[in-house]
Amino acid sequence: MARTVDVIGDRWSLLIVRDVFDGIHRFSGLQRNLGLAKNILASRLRELVAHGILQTVPAADGTAYHEYELTEKGRDLFIVIVALRQWGEAHLFDDGEPHSVLLDVDHEKPLQRLQVTGANGEHLGPEGAFVRKLEPRAS
Amino acid sequence: MARTVDVIGDRWSLLIVRDVFDGIHRFSGLQRNLGLAKNILASRLRELVAHGILQTVPAADGTAYHEYELTEKGRDLFIVIVALRQWGEAHLFDDGEPHSVLLDVDHEKPLQRLQVTGANGEHLGPEGAFVRKLEPRAS
Repeated sequence: MARTVDVIGDRWSLLIVRDVFDGIHRFSGLQRNLGLAKNILASRLRELVAHGILQTVPAADGTAYHEYELTEKGRDLFIVIVALRQWGEAHLFDDGEPHSVLLDVDHEKPLQRLQVTGANGEHLGPEGAFVRKLEPRAS
Repeated sequence: MARTVDVIGDRWSLLIVRDVFDGIHRFSGLQRNLGLAKNILASRLRELVAHGILQTVPAADGTAYHEYELTEKGRDLFIVIVALRQWGEAHLFDDGEPHSVLLDVDHEKPLQRLQVTGANGEHLGPEGAFVRKLEPRAS
């Protein structure tokens, strides 16, 4: 968990990854949508590429631009993004306050809430799980 | 999602929340485990209380200390913490490199991987979901 937040525990990195999931692949588009300084965006993109979360590819339209794509490791952040979004929807909007929603493509209906599930498939709350720390090495 | 990262998209806030989930409830314990400066810990704890994620309660042992507890809103971050941890376990350790694991209390076996599920219960990858942005207000 500490390693994870070292890699993506930064406001901008998470928002960049979200935007790439949402189909924004170019520097200019990310800059416009996030409204952050070019040097900060460039530095965060470099870090995300260095961590193997994004990769650069030639532009789909054959122009000289390059685009940012999620790697397999980056695509696995989908669940993290959904978890953050669902928590925000549940807790950071007033009743009736409108917000964007995440829908499934096939039904255009909201996704189910994520559930933590134990080894046998039962739903777990925080009391149902515990962390087993690493044992100190025997030698 | 942007609101969420404003509230918890900070390395220390997420690690503090994780530690409280793991049973560390006092300033001194958090400081020892996280090894961060007292003034930064104090400021992050104040923010987490102000956002309604943590609350202070009298110490369980009747001493004059107070302790930090997760509110209901804070407890709902369990899924976010599990998502971050599972991503880190899958992608930030070398093969065979040991790390702590999250187990279910009843079986002492690892939790299942979180799954994004659509309205009808089917598992979805990033292509299976899309964000419907807010419509501009009609008036």
